[in-house]
Amino acid sequence: MESVKRRFISFEGSEGCGKTTQIRLLKKRLEERGQKVILVREPGSTPLGERLRRLLKHSAIGFCPLAELFLFEASRAELIKKIIEPEMAQNTWILADRFTDSTLVYQGIVRGIPLKTIEELNQLATAGIQPTLTILLDIPVTSSRFRIKKRDGQKPSIDKLQADFERSLEMVRKAYLELASREPERFYILEATGSPKEIATLVWEKISHVFEL
Amino acid sequence: MESVKRRFISFEGSEGCGKTTQIRLLKKRLEERGQKVILVREPGSTPLGERLRRLLKHSAIGFCPLAELFLFEASRAELIKKIIEPEMAQNTWILADRFTDSTLVYQGIVRGIPLKTIEELNQLATAGIQPTLTILLDIPVTSSRFRIKKRDGQKPSIDKLQADFERSLEMVRKAYLELASREPERFYILEATGSPKEIATLVWEKISHVFEL
Repeated sequence: MESVKRRFISFEGSEGCGKTTQIRLLKKRLEERGQKVILVREPGSTPLGERLRRLLKHSAIGFCPLAELFLFEASRAELIKKIIEPEMAQNTWILADRFTDSTLVYQGIVRGIPLKTIEELNQLATAGIQPTLTILLDIPVTSSRFRIKKRDGQKPSIDKLQADFERSLEMVRKAYLELASREPERFYILEATGSPKEIATLVWEKISHVFEL
Repeated sequence: MESVKRRFISFEGSEGCGKTTQIRLLKKRLEERGQKVILVREPGSTPLGERLRRLLKHSAIGFCPLAELFLFEASRAELIKKIIEPEMAQNTWILADRFTDSTLVYQGIVRGIPLKTIEELNQLATAGIQPTLTILLDIPVTSSRFRIKKRDGQKPSIDKLQADFERSLEMVRKAYLELASREPERFYILEATGSPKEIATLVWEKISHVFEL
């Protein structure tokens, strides 16, 4: 039997980098070519995952980092078992809005849990299933801040919280680039400062190359 | 500094073995001696834990075993961080209605996750904190079935489900006894077929011996 590349692509990047837009554009393009595509997001996508998503979003201040990590992994284990494995068996395209790399960045670098611990839990939750390709949408912190504000309607303010926010955006960006440098085969770093259409073109070029479309 | 025994006791055993009753009786007895006591249960006890408890109880059929395991560990990590560690620092007595052994029995033996995996997650979630004493209330499967029916008002019925239920009660009982044989120092196996008052007397004898009360 010929080895077939898993049609599993994750999108990663700081908040406001344009992941969701790019995923939707790629889905449309694949479907226009008659492909079957599903979108998944983390945490989320299953009934359990969506409940955990609400729990995590509404209680961001409350839980200890380790409990938070276990909740993400619970969502992931369920996603793998109930959606990703069966869809993969059908040769469906799976486009993921965040996956294991987000956990390394946010629970590891930002919240301080050792990366080795997270890698072990990721391995357990995914049963070793990795995306064939991870598209990292990299944007400067200033653009990220601008887009988040535009989206969430926050007013700019130069205070303590704002400074923390910038530092954390910078930390997230650096962490992603560091992860990407460790796995150059899987990661595709895309400077995502252009228009959504321009970026979508670059995403498509990469994908048609990797998957020989 | 003198080493002080952690005042942390867990109660384990099949459903219907009388854990909750014994914990309440022990709490009362310790408080009568002027001791500060808290009760914890798993999953539960913290706002996160209680939400996960509801999620797990209402969706017992739904989640894959691994997702379930991660939810238990999330509850445990939060319990350790928010309640057990701070209360331990105050020398409070902590009486736990189920702890790590339940996870080994139910997620491991019953649901089939390798025990080594669960032990690693337990170690991570608890930061290595173990009860000084684990009281295993051991009752025959027939008593367990009788007590569960009495409590939940189920009607006896000899059908497929009933047979599965009996097999699972037997499996749980054996698994607990096996765990106890591996750690005879920590476990106290109590044949819990007597009256609640008789059992409470035996529990108290053991505790006053172990903690030199």
